Amino acid sequence: MTTEASAKVIDGKSVAKEIRDEIDVEISRMKDSIGVVPGLAVILVGDRKDSATYVRNKKKSCESVGINSYEVRLPEDSSEQEVLEHISRFNDDPSVHGILVQLPLPSHMNEQNVLNAVCIEKDVDGFHPLNIGRLAMRDREPLFVPCTPKGCIELLHRYGVDIKGQRAVVIGRSNIVGMPAALLLQREDATVSIVHSRTKNPEKITREADIIISAVGQPNMVKGSWIKPGSVVIDVGINPVEDAKSPRGYRLVGDVCYEEASKIASAITPVPGGVGPMTIAMLLSNTLISAKRINNFK
Amino acid sequence: MTTEASAKVIDGKSVAKEIRDEIDVEISRMKDSIGVVPGLAVILVGDRKDSATYVRNKKKSCESVGINSYEVRLPEDSSEQEVLEHISRFNDDPSVHGILVQLPLPSHMNEQNVLNAVCIEKDVDGFHPLNIGRLAMRDREPLFVPCTPKGCIELLHRYGVDIKGQRAVVIGRSNIVGMPAALLLQREDATVSIVHSRTKNPEKITREADIIISAVGQPNMVKGSWIKPGSVVIDVGINPVEDAKSPRGYRLVGDVCYEEASKIASAITPVPGGVGPMTIAMLLSNTLISAKRINNFK
Repeated sequence: MTTEASAKVIDGKSVAKEIRDEIDVEISRMKDSIGVVPGLAVILVGDRKDSATYVRNKKKSCESVGINSYEVRLPEDSSEQEVLEHISRFNDDPSVHGILVQLPLPSHMNEQNVLNAVCIEKDVDGFHPLNIGRLAMRDREPLFVPCTPKGCIELLHRYGVDIKGQRAVVIGRSNIVGMPAALLLQREDATVSIVHSRTKNPEKITREADIIISAVGQPNMVKGSWIKPGSVVIDVGINPVEDAKSPRGYRLVGDVCYEEASKIASAITPVPGGVGPMTIAMLLSNTLISAKRINNFK
Repeated sequence: MTTEASAKVIDGKSVAKEIRDEIDVEISRMKDSIGVVPGLAVILVGDRKDSATYVRNKKKSCESVGINSYEVRLPEDSSEQEVLEHISRFNDDPSVHGILVQLPLPSHMNEQNVLNAVCIEKDVDGFHPLNIGRLAMRDREPLFVPCTPKGCIELLHRYGVDIKGQRAVVIGRSNIVGMPAALLLQREDATVSIVHSRTKNPEKITREADIIISAVGQPNMVKGSWIKPGSVVIDVGINPVEDAKSPRGYRLVGDVCYEEASKIASAITPVPGGVGPMTIAMLLSNTLISAKRINNFK
C-alpha cells in the first residue's frame, strides 16, 4: 500500500511575491506623501561567488519594489578599518535606512566588531544583541526581526496556521535562524522545544510537534517517522546533494525528507521555493519599516 | 502503601553560605592586591515593606562578605528625574561596581526608562536587553547572568547534576527567571522546553523532563504526577499560603507540591531554603565579577 502526498504545499515563492507587491504599494504611498524612498546599503568584501550572487539578488529585489540600493564592493585584502569607515558613512547617510554586511567576511576581520558597528536603527538583519534581547523579553519590541525566522512565521500566518498554544519544535539553534525562530514562536504563545546536536532522541521530541521549523543544514535528516500526522513543517535548510541527472551535477534539498514528510504533514514548504524567497522579501520589509520609522511615517 | 520521601534535598542555604565564603576570600585577595573593595548601590523608592526588607537583607549580605553598600532611599512621590540623577551619579562613581534599582517602582515612573539608565557595566541584575541578547546568542558572553536563574544553575552544578543532553522543562517565561533560565540551560546543551500559561497539557510535557525549573508563583501547582521518577526539581516559587498554625498566619510554599515531589524526584530544592538564598549570593557574585572586570583584576 502506498500513501499519496497529501500535505498542502506552502508556496513561499508566491507569498513572497504577494509581500513584494504590498511593499511596492507602501513605498509609492510614502514617496507620494513625504517624498522619501527607502534605501538599502550592501557591503560585500571579497570575491566569493555565492556571496556575489546573494548580493545581486538582493539588489534586483530592491529594484523590483522601488528601494534604492547602494553597493560597496571591497577587495578580499581590505582592512577591517576600511569596512568600518563605509559602515560609519552609511550610518550617517539619511538616504540609507538599512545596512547589510554580506557574510562571511574574510577571516582576517572580526565579524562581531564589524556587525556591532552598524547602528541599531539600520540593522535590518536584526542580528544585534540588543535586538535579540528585546526579541527574547516580554513587553519589549525588537526594532527588526531577523529575516529568515520572520519569513517562517509569516508563512504560518498567511496560511492560517494557529500558533498559540500549539507545540512547536525548532531543530537547530543558530543565532540567525533557530534561536530567533524559537523566540518568535514563544512570543506567539506556542509551547517551544529546541532540538539540537546534543539532543538525545530528537525524533521522539519532534514527533510531538504541531509545528516544526528545521534549520540545521543536513540534507533529508528529518524523516517521515519524526513527524506527527497533520503537523505543519517549515524547512529552512537549503542543501546541495549530488545529482548526476541535473545539468549542474547537483540539486537542492531541505533538512526534511520531503517525499516522506509530504505524506504525513498537513502542510509543508518545498525546497527550493519555500522559505528561501521569503528571506529577501523580509529584508525588503525590514528596510521599509526602517524608512517609515526614521521618517515617522505611519 | 506509603512511599517515603527519597529525594536528596538541595540545600540552597548551605550552598549560598559556601559561595559567600568564596566571595569573601576573593574580596580579601583583591583588596590586598590592588586596594579595591567592591561596592553595590541600591536605590529604593517608596515605603513598601517587602522592598525595604529585601534591601536590608542585601545590605546585610554585602557587609558579611566585605562589599561596600551604598543606599539611596527616596520618597514615594519622587520624580523619575531624581531617580535618574542618582543612577547617573552611581554610573560615574568608581567606588560603585553594581547598581540595583529595587522593583517595583511607584506607578508614575517608567520602569524601562529607569532600568535602561543603569550603565551595562554595572547592571549586576543582568536585565538589560543587550545582556539578555548576549545570553541568547552562541559565541557571545553576557556581562552578567541574572541572579535567580544563575542561582538555579549553580545549584545544579554544585550538586553534580548533568545538564548536557538532558531534557529540561522550564515552567514560566518571565523576563527575570523563566526566560533567562531557559537560555542558560540551552547554553549548557540541555534540550529545553518552556511551559507557560498557554501550554496545553503542561503535565505531560513536564513529565518528560530530567530537570525541572519552576518559576510561576502558583502554590503547589506542580503535582507529583507531573514529575518523572528520578528527575531533579528546582523550585523558584516562594508563595505565601494561609496557615492558622503559624504564628504569622501564613507559611511559604513553592510552585511544586513538595510532599508529593520529594517521593518521586531524585533531588529537590525546599522552599524556603532552596533558590531563595542563592539569589542574593549571586548578586554578591555579580558585584565581585564587576569590580574585577572594571579593575582588570584576575
